[in-house]
Amino acid sequence: MNFSSRKIEQAVEEISRLPGIGKKTALRLALHLLRRPSAQTEALSAALLDLRNNTTFCKQCHTISDTEICGICASPKRDQSIVCIVEDVRDVMAIENTGGYQGVYHVLGGLISPMDGIGPSDLTIDSLMEKLNEGIIQEVVFALNTTMEGDTTNFYLYRKVKDFGLQLTTIARGIAVGDELEFADEVTLGRSIQHRIPYEQSLPK
Amino acid sequence: MNFSSRKIEQAVEEISRLPGIGKKTALRLALHLLRRPSAQTEALSAALLDLRNNTTFCKQCHTISDTEICGICASPKRDQSIVCIVEDVRDVMAIENTGGYQGVYHVLGGLISPMDGIGPSDLTIDSLMEKLNEGIIQEVVFALNTTMEGDTTNFYLYRKVKDFGLQLTTIARGIAVGDELEFADEVTLGRSIQHRIPYEQSLPK
Repeated sequence: MNFSSRKIEQAVEEISRLPGIGKKTALRLALHLLRRPSAQTEALSAALLDLRNNTTFCKQCHTISDTEICGICASPKRDQSIVCIVEDVRDVMAIENTGGYQGVYHVLGGLISPMDGIGPSDLTIDSLMEKLNEGIIQEVVFALNTTMEGDTTNFYLYRKVKDFGLQLTTIARGIAVGDELEFADEVTLGRSIQHRIPYEQSLPK
Repeated sequence: MNFSSRKIEQAVEEISRLPGIGKKTALRLALHLLRRPSAQTEALSAALLDLRNNTTFCKQCHTISDTEICGICASPKRDQSIVCIVEDVRDVMAIENTGGYQGVYHVLGGLISPMDGIGPSDLTIDSLMEKLNEGIIQEVVFALNTTMEGDTTNFYLYRKVKDFGLQLTTIARGIAVGDELEFADEVTLGRSIQHRIPYEQSLPK
């Protein structure tokens, strides 16, 4: 591209290093910021720097946190005997949004993926084993995505965890609430039928 | 959303104020930056601030520029007697990328759009009229997009400009090079046929 301004060129270069943002989108975003009051650009820059430099990972669950121990791990209301294993922070947020889980989390920080060069040692598995050795945890909830990497990681963790004598569970898979049966894929519908639950449990409380 | 970190929440808020970026994409971008070296976030922030605070609009053509007069307007190689009217900086870049235009530009900074509350006085039309009054310009090339707003603006400008006795031209519309005729829309194909050019002109030089 032929930029009329070296500064635009630089901004486009930096913006387009973000995932899923090409040069054209980056230019659109840069021009947008130019049209808005400079306070907006200043707020954006400050928020990005603050996020990058002043957040840390919770020492217990490895989620992104403003403090050494995150709000969930530090809360006396949470059940420290149940730990839910998730891939990343987004999964923590998604489960927290349901308001239906009272245990704590363990964020792996990724999934085992030999193709991408990610092995077990790149994840927070050692920290999980330490936590299990403390003997407080009674139940481990597997909540990884059902991709090939998710299944591989699940199986790896299952083999490491199974001799602790804990309750091992996984989140229910089935037809989404409101979805129509005829459009569901066979695997999902098959699991839905196989793992059917007592009708009374499905009623709103 | 239920954020585990107030700083993530703030970053997501600021990022999602950009056009076409929702909360989920903003979160993805924020988490991406967290995973990269902090130098990347610092470079991004610095580039955005530099762009916003240290660029200006060229006093002559109103394109974004690092200097009072942009490189195109200041160049002795450019023909100051031909001015191409475009909507915004992206159009300048697009035409510059072709390497086929030697005149100068006039960036309107938008299009007349009563629906969005944009009238002629919001654009750089006064500045264009001043330039025409100076008597240097011999040809005006209309290069606005063929949207309703573009056509409205074209017509408004045409009426203001037509009595100056200048050569008024517009960029050629037609079937794109490499496109197949059978898939072209009728209006474009119609114009292509109507404004056909001597065969020799289409040969590479």
